[in-house]
Amino acid sequence: MSETTDRPITACILVIGNEILSGRTQDLNVAYIAKGLGEIGIRLREVRIIPDVIETIVDTVNDVRARFDYVFTTGGIGPTHDDITADCVAKAFGVPLLVAPEARRRLEDAYRPRGIEINEARLRMARIPQGGTLVDNPVSAAPGFRIGNVFVMAGVPMLMRAMLEDIEPQLKRGALVHSQTVAAKIGEGKIAAGLMAIQKDFPDLAIGSYPYYREDGFGVQLVARGRDAAKVEQAAAAIEALIRSEGAEPTRV
Amino acid sequence: MSETTDRPITACILVIGNEILSGRTQDLNVAYIAKGLGEIGIRLREVRIIPDVIETIVDTVNDVRARFDYVFTTGGIGPTHDDITADCVAKAFGVPLLVAPEARRRLEDAYRPRGIEINEARLRMARIPQGGTLVDNPVSAAPGFRIGNVFVMAGVPMLMRAMLEDIEPQLKRGALVHSQTVAAKIGEGKIAAGLMAIQKDFPDLAIGSYPYYREDGFGVQLVARGRDAAKVEQAAAAIEALIRSEGAEPTRV
Repeated sequence: MSETTDRPITACILVIGNEILSGRTQDLNVAYIAKGLGEIGIRLREVRIIPDVIETIVDTVNDVRARFDYVFTTGGIGPTHDDITADCVAKAFGVPLLVAPEARRRLEDAYRPRGIEINEARLRMARIPQGGTLVDNPVSAAPGFRIGNVFVMAGVPMLMRAMLEDIEPQLKRGALVHSQTVAAKIGEGKIAAGLMAIQKDFPDLAIGSYPYYREDGFGVQLVARGRDAAKVEQAAAAIEALIRSEGAEPTRV
Repeated sequence: MSETTDRPITACILVIGNEILSGRTQDLNVAYIAKGLGEIGIRLREVRIIPDVIETIVDTVNDVRARFDYVFTTGGIGPTHDDITADCVAKAFGVPLLVAPEARRRLEDAYRPRGIEINEARLRMARIPQGGTLVDNPVSAAPGFRIGNVFVMAGVPMLMRAMLEDIEPQLKRGALVHSQTVAAKIGEGKIAAGLMAIQKDFPDLAIGSYPYYREDGFGVQLVARGRDAAKVEQAAAAIEALIRSEGAEPTRV
């Protein structure tokens, strides 16, 4: 049902949570969301990781929702006192945060069979900003929500992934970006000039060079990205030829 | 040799790189830097992941260097055409980007024994903004640099970690934050009210609740953080008592 457009569609992720900024928790959501968006032609253009501070969250939501087509937040929508994302998003939009009857029903339906009561804390998870719509959470029932171009998701990866599945069909689709990756055990300095020449030959593509250094040696992955799959393939072939001309063996990955 | 201060010292990380935004590469640097800074009393307050776009990098560097005590950048300082971080940082500070003789010497010393010549591309890695100082890179020689309160590091984790070791002794040290973590196989909704009461009893601490859902079940980690180690311990004990009162078994992790 989703609309497709030819212009680039942009997105920003806000990772909300002290636990990411303290280094306690390794974020795994950004790469996952980025890949999912890329597959439907939406380009992630910025990520901000911010602390559980009301003014920071409110100001950041308002800044980025004006600059990107879509904003995705992760974290801070559970039942405890440090879960303040819904409050902040409501404040950013200038609307009240209300218990949504449908959200409450979903929580009750999930908890009743386990003999769990909806206490005040659990009811916090049924609050969504006025005018928002629910995002399904088949794993633990407590929904995310959408208001305007902002999608509010859980931070726990298993829940976030389930919510993203419900969100993706709602998004406009942009022009797909194709990519080819060529790897080789060669230093970047050896191919930099040739690579720049290839970039000049393919001005519509983005040619990226991503070196790695590990205990077992070093090498590089060269990535050609762009909307024209044929040109991406031509650039990848040119990169392979460049690597061979420098005496190394390219591998398509 | 580093100065110690009692006020909070703040930091921001700029992750520069299309490969992170496309989801191709999983960032591993943020959590590592965050932990390292935390150990010397510096609090990471924001992270931005931004693309390889000159204006975006320049504007973001200027925004965040005015708002935080320290800024750490990762990525974009290699020899290829898409490595534009040094150019952008020089532009942000309004100074020329020049080949630093000492940086050039280090590259030559590293490459000479391997019979590698310093070509134009490799020489790009010796350029630092006027007024900057080098950050050592014992792994692959090409240095990072510091200018003002901005530290520019490689994106490859092995290189970044080596550079951070050279940087840490240069940083002012802030008041240490102590933390205790209590884990339990219990739903957050069951302990949310009690946890909020504990937060009220310890207003100087930050009490965080971090649930997990995995294939093998769910649970929560409760973290008390603050400058007063004794109070952190008291709060952790109160959290353990709360968990036991709800019929679950706490574990200190």
